[in-house]
Amino acid sequence: MTAPVSLPIWLNGRILPAGGAYVDTADRGFLLGDGVFETMRVAGGQIRYLDRHMNRLAQGAAAIMLPPPDPAAIMAGIAALLDACGMETGSLRLTCTRGVGPRGLLPPAQVTPTVLLTAASGLPPATPVRLVTASHRRDAGSILSRIKSLNYLPSILARMEAAEQGADDAVLLNHAGFVAETSASTLVACLGGQLVTPPVSDGALPGTARGVVMDAGIVREGRIAPAQLRMATAAFTLNSLSVREVMAWDGIALPRRPDLLATLRAACQG
Amino acid sequence: MTAPVSLPIWLNGRILPAGGAYVDTADRGFLLGDGVFETMRVAGGQIRYLDRHMNRLAQGAAAIMLPPPDPAAIMAGIAALLDACGMETGSLRLTCTRGVGPRGLLPPAQVTPTVLLTAASGLPPATPVRLVTASHRRDAGSILSRIKSLNYLPSILARMEAAEQGADDAVLLNHAGFVAETSASTLVACLGGQLVTPPVSDGALPGTARGVVMDAGIVREGRIAPAQLRMATAAFTLNSLSVREVMAWDGIALPRRPDLLATLRAACQG
Repeated sequence: MTAPVSLPIWLNGRILPAGGAYVDTADRGFLLGDGVFETMRVAGGQIRYLDRHMNRLAQGAAAIMLPPPDPAAIMAGIAALLDACGMETGSLRLTCTRGVGPRGLLPPAQVTPTVLLTAASGLPPATPVRLVTASHRRDAGSILSRIKSLNYLPSILARMEAAEQGADDAVLLNHAGFVAETSASTLVACLGGQLVTPPVSDGALPGTARGVVMDAGIVREGRIAPAQLRMATAAFTLNSLSVREVMAWDGIALPRRPDLLATLRAACQG
Repeated sequence: MTAPVSLPIWLNGRILPAGGAYVDTADRGFLLGDGVFETMRVAGGQIRYLDRHMNRLAQGAAAIMLPPPDPAAIMAGIAALLDACGMETGSLRLTCTRGVGPRGLLPPAQVTPTVLLTAASGLPPATPVRLVTASHRRDAGSILSRIKSLNYLPSILARMEAAEQGADDAVLLNHAGFVAETSASTLVACLGGQLVTPPVSDGALPGTARGVVMDAGIVREGRIAPAQLRMATAAFTLNSLSVREVMAWDGIALPRRPDLLATLRAACQG
């Protein structure tokens, strides 16, 4: 992870200078993790798969009963921020919280969401990854496992656990012991010659890159047991920012398939 | 829920005027729900059960591998804020996040926590409550169910669901179908003449008021099935701010036991 390059920020309709964006300490995003977000790839000065991200944002907002931000305002904000940053390649994060509220859990009668757009130059590395299995389990029964909410501690703990073991990322299993995903990526395994990814009902977040490769008929949904992952003839992690090969899982080296990597990358990033 | 009275705020060692406290939009508390908090009762100008709150804060911080804030600094902050607010009765919330970090899930090598203290005058109502059963289940297998983290969406969704049904709060069951707690309170039921509260292993947060009544020998831990709760001869919700009678659960009226209410209140607030 490289240090962030300071770039302008878009907050509630205004472009602000780098390092000059603050939110009220009474914001429910800060106090309660009450919000949703999207991380999007910028290529050629454009957001890739913007429709998919906007759809998922709307679904996530609906799941937590948050009035979704006005898509037109978001579009205008994205254009303004990309322009202010002069960005051709990188990523953009959209965060939407339930805004400022009184003490307690119930939102105010009139919610004014906080909407934040931040940009980062460059992309995370796309080098092969070493995975370990996280001790924290994904709660496949929770609606929160199906949306990209600000309740991100399960993934943070999994990633920190991986780093402690010298690995790049962690595979989260659900309580039934089946593979769900990694801390912030879809896991795809080549099993019996087919590319398979865990179903949402097993705790997989319906990622945008996941949607792209499934809609293209390259990857199908299927339950994955850890014993199967051990026998995979290749595995990959994918999210909106990168497609990476899995070189090892819990210390077991996995075969590499440059052809499949190229296919997945072409689908996600082509 | 009454509108908050504007009071001074303590943020990272400084008293700030009401409405004048802001955090960086790059704070991991805001972006990822990466932090823990405590809600404490102020009575006679003092924090009740401060040691219990500080112990739980330290345990919660350890669970998410967050360097705990310096207790001496917290104590000084509490004293300064109570003085600035001139508060005799009310509540104080301590929020501790992993501070500002770069893009991504891994914390920076050097973490500078954000520590916030906010005060609220008066206390929430202690009138009898109507409870309903939440559709969202508590993940009893997660360490996050045992700490007071900023990942509070499960409780928010349960409380909103209760409000939609005209109830005051919701009972969360775990995936095995046993009672865990309510959205922000310990549930205590009188079963077979004994006051019983669900074990932490069933998804109950180890609340401070819960600890007080258990240590006093007034309440014991025991698994509670919904069918048992329906037959309870009384039930109560308790947290650091209030002890309340349950008047109905899913539309079924529960008997009232003013004697037990008085016993629990005396223990928690005496």
